[in-house]
Amino acid sequence: MSWSITYPRVLPERRPPGHEPRAPRWTLVLDAPTSLLTADYLAVQLPRRDDPAEEEFLALARASADGPESTELLVATGPEGTVELIHLAYFTDPTAHERWLHDAPLPTWFDRLDAATATVGAWHEVLQVHPDRFETIYSDPRWTFGFGRCAGTEREPMTTNGYFGAARDRFPASAIDPLEAVGKQVRRTDVDSHGRRLRVESSHDTAVIRSGQFWEPAEGEQLVDYEHNLQSKLLTGMDHLREHPSDTGTLSLRILTSLDPASLAPRRETSVLGYFHSLGELEEWAASHHTHLAIYEHAIEAKRHWGDARSVVTWHEVVVLPRSARFEYVNCVPTTGLLPFAPTLLTVS
Amino acid sequence: MSWSITYPRVLPERRPPGHEPRAPRWTLVLDAPTSLLTADYLAVQLPRRDDPAEEEFLALARASADGPESTELLVATGPEGTVELIHLAYFTDPTAHERWLHDAPLPTWFDRLDAATATVGAWHEVLQVHPDRFETIYSDPRWTFGFGRCAGTEREPMTTNGYFGAARDRFPASAIDPLEAVGKQVRRTDVDSHGRRLRVESSHDTAVIRSGQFWEPAEGEQLVDYEHNLQSKLLTGMDHLREHPSDTGTLSLRILTSLDPASLAPRRETSVLGYFHSLGELEEWAASHHTHLAIYEHAIEAKRHWGDARSVVTWHEVVVLPRSARFEYVNCVPTTGLLPFAPTLLTVS
Repeated sequence: MSWSITYPRVLPERRPPGHEPRAPRWTLVLDAPTSLLTADYLAVQLPRRDDPAEEEFLALARASADGPESTELLVATGPEGTVELIHLAYFTDPTAHERWLHDAPLPTWFDRLDAATATVGAWHEVLQVHPDRFETIYSDPRWTFGFGRCAGTEREPMTTNGYFGAARDRFPASAIDPLEAVGKQVRRTDVDSHGRRLRVESSHDTAVIRSGQFWEPAEGEQLVDYEHNLQSKLLTGMDHLREHPSDTGTLSLRILTSLDPASLAPRRETSVLGYFHSLGELEEWAASHHTHLAIYEHAIEAKRHWGDARSVVTWHEVVVLPRSARFEYVNCVPTTGLLPFAPTLLTVS
Repeated sequence: MSWSITYPRVLPERRPPGHEPRAPRWTLVLDAPTSLLTADYLAVQLPRRDDPAEEEFLALARASADGPESTELLVATGPEGTVELIHLAYFTDPTAHERWLHDAPLPTWFDRLDAATATVGAWHEVLQVHPDRFETIYSDPRWTFGFGRCAGTEREPMTTNGYFGAARDRFPASAIDPLEAVGKQVRRTDVDSHGRRLRVESSHDTAVIRSGQFWEPAEGEQLVDYEHNLQSKLLTGMDHLREHPSDTGTLSLRILTSLDPASLAPRRETSVLGYFHSLGELEEWAASHHTHLAIYEHAIEAKRHWGDARSVVTWHEVVVLPRSARFEYVNCVPTTGLLPFAPTLLTVS
């Protein structure tokens, strides 16, 4: 049995009449009704790997395993030469999330960290939405990723894919809401974030994508194809977004490498965490820019070529946030996360 | 045709088996599906009525009529001898709300107000929820109140009333979520709010009630009964909540008098805007405290006595908020709104 929310459609869907996808895709469904989904990203921003704060952070993360329905450990090259070690926790139960924030060692350490004396940076970005503002796609149902690692979730085959506008159509809310940002994106140059604890309020309908790549089972030709072809196309696309933030609506982009939580060895699994001013701007890039078309066509062609033997898996999950101030930065560099494009900057006291 | 959201029930309902309400009641339904409901309270806090800032505020309010689906003008006795003049705007379209915030004279005046030089206080409290965190009750369907003044809403008879726990049962989300606050309510004594622009982030599952009284059509015996009996019972109840904030979970309580928007004359219409740490604490007071039982029994008895000729109408609308930082105070006195019980205080820069 599965539960999903649908609205009687008021706005037209984007699916072309009679559309048949070129490649099979799957999407996440929940076994039980849920009113709020939460992805909780909590990170330490280090001057370098192996900074003494890394071990402290890892110990806090290990001691905070009770509560989240799924956790991951990720590493990213941070801004201004920093390294970010990220604890990602998923919850389908918002009360369990609040209890974890209130009681667990990692979030309580973050809340008590003194920004004035901290020797490293730290940040906490909480994405929480009603399921009507959430959509997913997976190229292969045999593996679990992101929210799909929570118990009580399944991957179902779908046909709402393979056309531009399909991601929008997969948001239940898109049937009744244009998911449209109001106002412009302005880059701040006045962010004095060192030694301070700052909050950012995102603007209404900020879109956040976690787009994943998994090639652990890949061998031989497929491994070469991923590492030499698809990965470089992906990085070219990401470079374009980072270099043209205002044109593309990009607010923040991080390339995350999944770590084995025991050995801390990097896995053959990456994901891009991107914040966009609006879903429309993310769609515009996906529909029209050659850097995305290169990624998209490569993925479709690879699936057609290798079929079920395809051993590189791509997927994403996207949320469209209502206004939220759940982005907090302690002693971070000024270009961290949403700080450079903060519509509203808030000093926590 | 009407639309509502329901979830397959996971948590038990509170309705006793075979329950039949003693008095008929109505609840709000929406004609069309909606993903976010918004009540936008924007106020000026004056040292006294007829302060020169009052006229400026009223002119801004009159110039901001385009956008909201319903507006009201309200006055309240504010804290520390102030007077609060409040513009209340309702929206069932969140994009229309964002456009209004971005373009309309009143909210843009508020956003640009310089806290350091302002001669009056001002505040802005925005309540925005998915309809699954919203419930209403009306003693009479012949009048419209609150969200019920938006086009595309209707009052429907119901039987989810007349027992303790009925309000909770009316929240669609209560079928799957205990709507439970985590953590304690702590009174701050360190709020230095004069000359500053501060934001408050509410804690998860803060409950906000607007509970209304309307006796414009009341004459003779019913008018006397309202003004001499029910009103004093109501005020006794409100005094109890204000005097015992921590015991009752009361974060803020304002008694609002509705004004005729043209003449500014007070109407025979009041409402109480109350913020509570949790729905459970509001329920506890309603179920067990003699000050609420006196109000409740009086209303039931009056309806039984006068039947359809009953000319005093009572109603309420309640929302349970996920965490939200949409509470902003400019140069207000420190006991305004959520400031004294702010879990997190944020300085806007």
